[in-house]
Amino acid sequence: MKVYLSPDELPRKWFNIVPYLSEPLPPPLDPETKKPVSPEKLLVIFPMPLIEQEMSMEEWIPIPEEVLQIYGLWRPTPLIRALNLERFLETPAKIFYKHEGVSPPGSHKPNTAVSQAYYNKISGIKKLATETGAGQWGSSLAFATQFFGLECEVYMVRASFKQKPYRRILMELWGAKVEPSPSPHTKAGKQFYEIDPEHPGSLGIAISEAIERAFEDKSTNYALGSVLNHVLLHQTIIGLEAELQMQKLGLYPDYIVGCVGGGSNFAGLVFPFLKHKITGEHPQTEFWAVEPEACPTLTKGEYRYDYGDTVGLTPLIKMYTLGADFVPSPIHAGGLRYHGDAPLLCALYHHGFIKACAYPQEEVFKAGVLFARTEGTVPAPESAHAIKKVIDLALECKKNKEEKVILFNLSGHGYFDLSAYDAYLRGEF
Amino acid sequence: MKVYLSPDELPRKWFNIVPYLSEPLPPPLDPETKKPVSPEKLLVIFPMPLIEQEMSMEEWIPIPEEVLQIYGLWRPTPLIRALNLERFLETPAKIFYKHEGVSPPGSHKPNTAVSQAYYNKISGIKKLATETGAGQWGSSLAFATQFFGLECEVYMVRASFKQKPYRRILMELWGAKVEPSPSPHTKAGKQFYEIDPEHPGSLGIAISEAIERAFEDKSTNYALGSVLNHVLLHQTIIGLEAELQMQKLGLYPDYIVGCVGGGSNFAGLVFPFLKHKITGEHPQTEFWAVEPEACPTLTKGEYRYDYGDTVGLTPLIKMYTLGADFVPSPIHAGGLRYHGDAPLLCALYHHGFIKACAYPQEEVFKAGVLFARTEGTVPAPESAHAIKKVIDLALECKKNKEEKVILFNLSGHGYFDLSAYDAYLRGEF
Repeated sequence: MKVYLSPDELPRKWFNIVPYLSEPLPPPLDPETKKPVSPEKLLVIFPMPLIEQEMSMEEWIPIPEEVLQIYGLWRPTPLIRALNLERFLETPAKIFYKHEGVSPPGSHKPNTAVSQAYYNKISGIKKLATETGAGQWGSSLAFATQFFGLECEVYMVRASFKQKPYRRILMELWGAKVEPSPSPHTKAGKQFYEIDPEHPGSLGIAISEAIERAFEDKSTNYALGSVLNHVLLHQTIIGLEAELQMQKLGLYPDYIVGCVGGGSNFAGLVFPFLKHKITGEHPQTEFWAVEPEACPTLTKGEYRYDYGDTVGLTPLIKMYTLGADFVPSPIHAGGLRYHGDAPLLCALYHHGFIKACAYPQEEVFKAGVLFARTEGTVPAPESAHAIKKVIDLALECKKNKEEKVILFNLSGHGYFDLSAYDAYLRGEF
Repeated sequence: MKVYLSPDELPRKWFNIVPYLSEPLPPPLDPETKKPVSPEKLLVIFPMPLIEQEMSMEEWIPIPEEVLQIYGLWRPTPLIRALNLERFLETPAKIFYKHEGVSPPGSHKPNTAVSQAYYNKISGIKKLATETGAGQWGSSLAFATQFFGLECEVYMVRASFKQKPYRRILMELWGAKVEPSPSPHTKAGKQFYEIDPEHPGSLGIAISEAIERAFEDKSTNYALGSVLNHVLLHQTIIGLEAELQMQKLGLYPDYIVGCVGGGSNFAGLVFPFLKHKITGEHPQTEFWAVEPEACPTLTKGEYRYDYGDTVGLTPLIKMYTLGADFVPSPIHAGGLRYHGDAPLLCALYHHGFIKACAYPQEEVFKAGVLFARTEGTVPAPESAHAIKKVIDLALECKKNKEEKVILFNLSGHGYFDLSAYDAYLRGEF
C-alpha cells in the first residue's frame, strides 16, 4: 500500500534542527590554529550559500525553484506500508518505509547533490570535484551536475573502479570524468601512484585528491555527500514528506529507524520528527540509528574532536569517532564504513534524543533477503541494516501484543549490490 | 514534471481491444492438424482463466483484488513531462513518458507476471516454468511468483547466464531456480547438452525446455512474457493510467510511440488510446511501433502463419514474421530480438491503424545517452528505440513549428545494461 503526495504537496522548505539544540553545536576547528574555522577559509572549496546554510540558525530554508524542478523528476517519493512483511512476521505493528531508491541514481544522495550543484552554479563555479568509494555519491553528483552544465570530476577508489564497473559507467554516462585514485594528476595521489600505479587506493586518499583540485583551481569547488550540516539539511525533504504522508493516514510513528554511515539519510528522515520530541509534542517516539558491527561509531566510538578524513586535511569536528585512522573490515555496505558521524547527529545522540545499535553483516543480509522476498524491492545493504532493526522491533511488538507504528528509511536499492547478495546466498559469509 | 495518480485512481479493469476489430482475429492453429487449437489443448500448459482471457470478447475485464494489491507496490506509475529534453531540442512539442522502469524488476513485465502468477495459483498450480534471454522476463516472473507461494523455474540461455550474472542473481534472490539452458534436465535440452555441456543456448531451446516441463508435470504450467492476447491485455493498465494522467492535464496525444519486441509494452500503452482512433473520436493520433533494424519484423516481415518458437512446439499464429528460423544479429536490445510479433498488434498494423519504423543500434544508443543526460533516467536499450523516434518527431515539430503532444513508453530502466552503454561510449559500435 502506497501513500502518495501530489507534486504540489512537495515541501518547499528544508528544516534546520539547529535552533532546537539546547546548546550551540561545537564549531569545526582549523587544523592549524585549533580555533573555529572562519567562513572565508571554507570559501576556497565551498560556495557562500552553502557556508551560510552550514551555519544557519533559521528553522526553515526555502528550496530554490530550480532545485524543486529537478526534485520533481522523482519526488515526492512514495511512503509504502510493508503489509507483506507484517503478515510474514505476524506482527500487530504497522511498518512503513520511505522509498528513496526511486531516484535515478537509486538513493537519497541526489537530494543534496542537486542542491549543491545548484548553489555552486549560481556562485560562478564551473566544476565540482569529489571522491567516491563504491560510487553512490559520485554517481549522484554526476547526475546532478549535468542539469546545471557543471563539469564533474570524481576520484574513485581504484579497487572499486576495477571491481564495480557499473557505477563507474553510470558516472561517465552522466558526463562525469572518473579517475581511479590514487591518480598521477594530484600531489596527494602522485606520491602513492609513483610507488605503485596499481595502488588500490582508499577513501582518505581520494578525498585528499578531490580537495586538492578545489584548492588549486578557483573555478573548481569540492562537494561532500554526508556529515556536514548543509547536507543533512537538504535531506530533511525526506522526513518532511513522510510527515505529510503519515498525517494523511492519521498516524504518528512510535519508532523511526535508519542506517547510519555519515548520518545523512538518517537525519533526513528523523530530524523533522525529532523536533516534536524535543518540543514535547510527541515525547514517546524512539529514534534508532543502526550501524554495522564492523564500524560501530555511535555504539563504541568516543565523543571528541577528530579529523573528517584520514589524511588530516579537513577541519577538526566534534563527533563520535573510532579514530581518523580506523580501518573497518571490508563489509559489503560500503556506505557505512566511516570512522565518524555527522556532528549534528552526534550532538543529538550525546544528549540522549537518539538510540543506536549495531548488527553483524550476516544478520543484515538475512533481513535484506526477507525484505526482497516479501516486499519485492531489493534493499541496498546499507538500508538492510535499518530493516534488521525494524524486524526486531516488529517481533517485540508481536511478543508484547502492541500495535505500534514503525517508520524506516529505505535509503537506496540494491541492484548494484547483487554480487554481495550472491555471496550471501552461496553462504560465503 | 510528474503527473501522479493517487492509489485510489488505479484502474480496476483491463481493456480488451478485440471487440473493436473489424474482423475476427485469425485463430492460432494446431501444428499437427492445422485446425484452430482447442482450449482443452492449451489447458495442459495454461490455466483456464488465462485461456478465457485469451479468447475473450468482453471489452473490460476486472483486475482481481489480489493483483491490484501487488500492483499497488509501484503503480500507478508516474507520467513525466520531459521538459529538459524539450529544452535541449528546442522543440515546441510537449513530450511525455510513462515510466514503467519504477517497478521492482525494472520494467513493464511484472504487470502480466503478477496476473499470470495469480491465475495459476487459484487454478491449483504449484510451479511456473519459463525461459529468459537477458533476464527481464525471468526476473519479473520470479518477483511475481513469490507473492503467491509458487515455485519458479527459469531456463536461462547459457550465454546470458554467464555474461549477465546480475539478473540471474536477482531471480535467485527472489527465490527462483535458474537453470542454464540447454540443461541436462529435459529431453529438449539434453540433446544439445550431451554434445556440448557448454552449449551457449538460444531462446528457442530454452522455450522448448520450459514447455516440456509444463507438459510433463500436471502441477507445473508455462508462462509467456509477451505476444499472447492475455499478456497484452494485462499491459493495458499502462495506457489506462496514461489516459487518466493526460486528462488531468487537459491534453490528448498526437503521437504515441513504443518499442516493439513481442509487442506487449507497445500494446499496453497504445490500445486504450487506439480505441478512440477506431471509434473516430480521436482520428488524428499516430501510433508508432519502433523496431531495431537488426530485427525488422513489422517493417520487413511477411504477414502469414508461423511458429512462435524456433523449434516448432507452439501453435501456428498469424503474424508479421521474419521466419521462425530467423537469427537476428546480437544487438544489445535483447528484448527486441523476436522473429514475430503479437498477432493482435499485427492485425491492427495490417489494417493500417499503426505505423512502424526501424533504427540502427548506434542511433538508438545516441538517443539513450541524450535522454540520460537531459532527463536523468537511464533507459533500457529497448526503450531507447522509442526515444529515438520521439526525438525525430520532436525535431519535425520544431521544423514545422507545431506544438504537438508526444507520449511514449519508457518500458524499463537500463541499469542492468550499463556495459552496453559503456561499449557505445567507447566507440565499440
